[in-house]
Amino acid sequence: MAVYTEVTDEELTTFVADYSIGKVTSCKGIAEGTENSNYLLNTEKGSYILTLYEKRVAANDLPFFLGLMGHLAKRGVACPTPLENTNGQALNQLCGRNAAIISFLEGMWPRRPTPDHCAELGQALAKLHVVGADFEIKRPNALSVASWRKLLEASGARADEVKPGLRDILAQEIDELEASWPETVSSLPSGVIHADLFPDNVFFNGGQLSGLIDFYFACNDVFAYDVAICLNAWCFETDGSFNTTKARRMLSAYGKVRNFSKVELDALPLLARGSAMRFLLTRLYDWLNTPKDAMVTIKDPLELLERLQFHQGVTSPSSYGLDQS
Amino acid sequence: MAVYTEVTDEELTTFVADYSIGKVTSCKGIAEGTENSNYLLNTEKGSYILTLYEKRVAANDLPFFLGLMGHLAKRGVACPTPLENTNGQALNQLCGRNAAIISFLEGMWPRRPTPDHCAELGQALAKLHVVGADFEIKRPNALSVASWRKLLEASGARADEVKPGLRDILAQEIDELEASWPETVSSLPSGVIHADLFPDNVFFNGGQLSGLIDFYFACNDVFAYDVAICLNAWCFETDGSFNTTKARRMLSAYGKVRNFSKVELDALPLLARGSAMRFLLTRLYDWLNTPKDAMVTIKDPLELLERLQFHQGVTSPSSYGLDQS
Repeated sequence: MAVYTEVTDEELTTFVADYSIGKVTSCKGIAEGTENSNYLLNTEKGSYILTLYEKRVAANDLPFFLGLMGHLAKRGVACPTPLENTNGQALNQLCGRNAAIISFLEGMWPRRPTPDHCAELGQALAKLHVVGADFEIKRPNALSVASWRKLLEASGARADEVKPGLRDILAQEIDELEASWPETVSSLPSGVIHADLFPDNVFFNGGQLSGLIDFYFACNDVFAYDVAICLNAWCFETDGSFNTTKARRMLSAYGKVRNFSKVELDALPLLARGSAMRFLLTRLYDWLNTPKDAMVTIKDPLELLERLQFHQGVTSPSSYGLDQS
Repeated sequence: MAVYTEVTDEELTTFVADYSIGKVTSCKGIAEGTENSNYLLNTEKGSYILTLYEKRVAANDLPFFLGLMGHLAKRGVACPTPLENTNGQALNQLCGRNAAIISFLEGMWPRRPTPDHCAELGQALAKLHVVGADFEIKRPNALSVASWRKLLEASGARADEVKPGLRDILAQEIDELEASWPETVSSLPSGVIHADLFPDNVFFNGGQLSGLIDFYFACNDVFAYDVAICLNAWCFETDGSFNTTKARRMLSAYGKVRNFSKVELDALPLLARGSAMRFLLTRLYDWLNTPKDAMVTIKDPLELLERLQFHQGVTSPSSYGLDQS
């Protein structure tokens, strides 16, 4: 994501003076993050990320996001921590926007995830689920099943520009998901989930997971939905094939930290369909509403249609190579 | 500038292994630079800029640009230095592109330049002119007077979308510049110039100039043209007024390092018109050919029309407050 807000050096100096991190030595806009302006801020004391929250992040969600990062980091989940200024505030104002300084996380996200990466991911995800349990603020999942029909309508007939018949395919799938989702989900353990744990949000350093970033879709929902997102995000090859080894390593590592029950396992095919739908719908909307030559990476929505259709053909977790062990 | 080329961690690891800078600990695309993909690369040994040269930078110009930075840095001009790999090469290949690792320069560019900044700039500019004298590779200025009519034609009738009558105003000015330029320029001292020294290419740290960056328009041309570019880039206020104090401080500091002769001073009004024209024409083209909602900053071409028209009214350097001293 490109930088939206231009921060003057005077404004930055004043802002940083309220923190105990020394003087600014450099500040560069970085091309990462979802909906925000992100800067790599170097000071006399070290490296930090400065984030300015742009319009698409609701201001009243920020205490949840920042609070959650602090909560998790304190309890040993590797993730960035918001810094408090000298008044004890993590959420402050810069250039008329909500802004925070967040600790810098070393590492890079894996462009070609391996089974080893998937195992590391599974362990970290389970830890996040366990440790998030006593986080007090709640935030419902704004992009769950109840939002999908509206999201599809926002793209409307133009969905068929991406693939003829796509609108009908998705509408029919939403019918089925709306029918099955509430009952399935009601029986599953829930808590804080990351809800966007694609490879670009997971950093590794020398093969070891160094941290999870970008908690701006985090919310309360069933844990198995987070696992289903990771199945879609990590376990398909670029040729569209499903990599059973990756899925098994991920789930097996997850299970060593938090028991992944039979009822959760059985729900995976449906949850994976729903997760594919959720990302397909937002990518579809972005695809139709971002100029092709804008300098942002627009992810292909049809990649997720393939995955959705794969999950439609899955009748039991054994098709994923995931049998209760 | 957003990042164009996506580098995988495996490709990066292999690339960096050929340098003596230790292992990569992080690598983030940054939103700076003109036509290239730039990354802030952290390794065990420090911070660096990794640049991948995209199409608009001609490959056969790269030895000039990289050689010049090395040449200047060795002789005490504060600027980034290209690192050589273990084979002694500064220019290498990554992801099918020419690529270089360049030293990291601390500091930030001044969003609101002051007369003190202008004095620091003048001194650094003069030093660049002096020290560049014995740099052996030559590169003609591809964006000088001979290119302006073609550049205007590239925008064509659409120039008037920006301002009615703009095409005629510019065509007439180009007539005058083409008539006066060769004779004026032939009498002036020349050498290596930066040719794009706008505030975003000059870093300061605690009020001191910490370095000049972005040498990708550097070329051989008359020194006074570089000064004229800086007049346009640094000495106008946002309300369009010319700040004589800034111009005086810049020229006075310049003159302490390299004598700025009467013939150069007298040429400034014409050179400043030409410099305004050059940036006006490229901004006009970008304005007309970049989608408005692309996530890049498109600079207003009309800002430079105002400056051009100011210089048209200047008959002698004393109008700038610059009298030979």
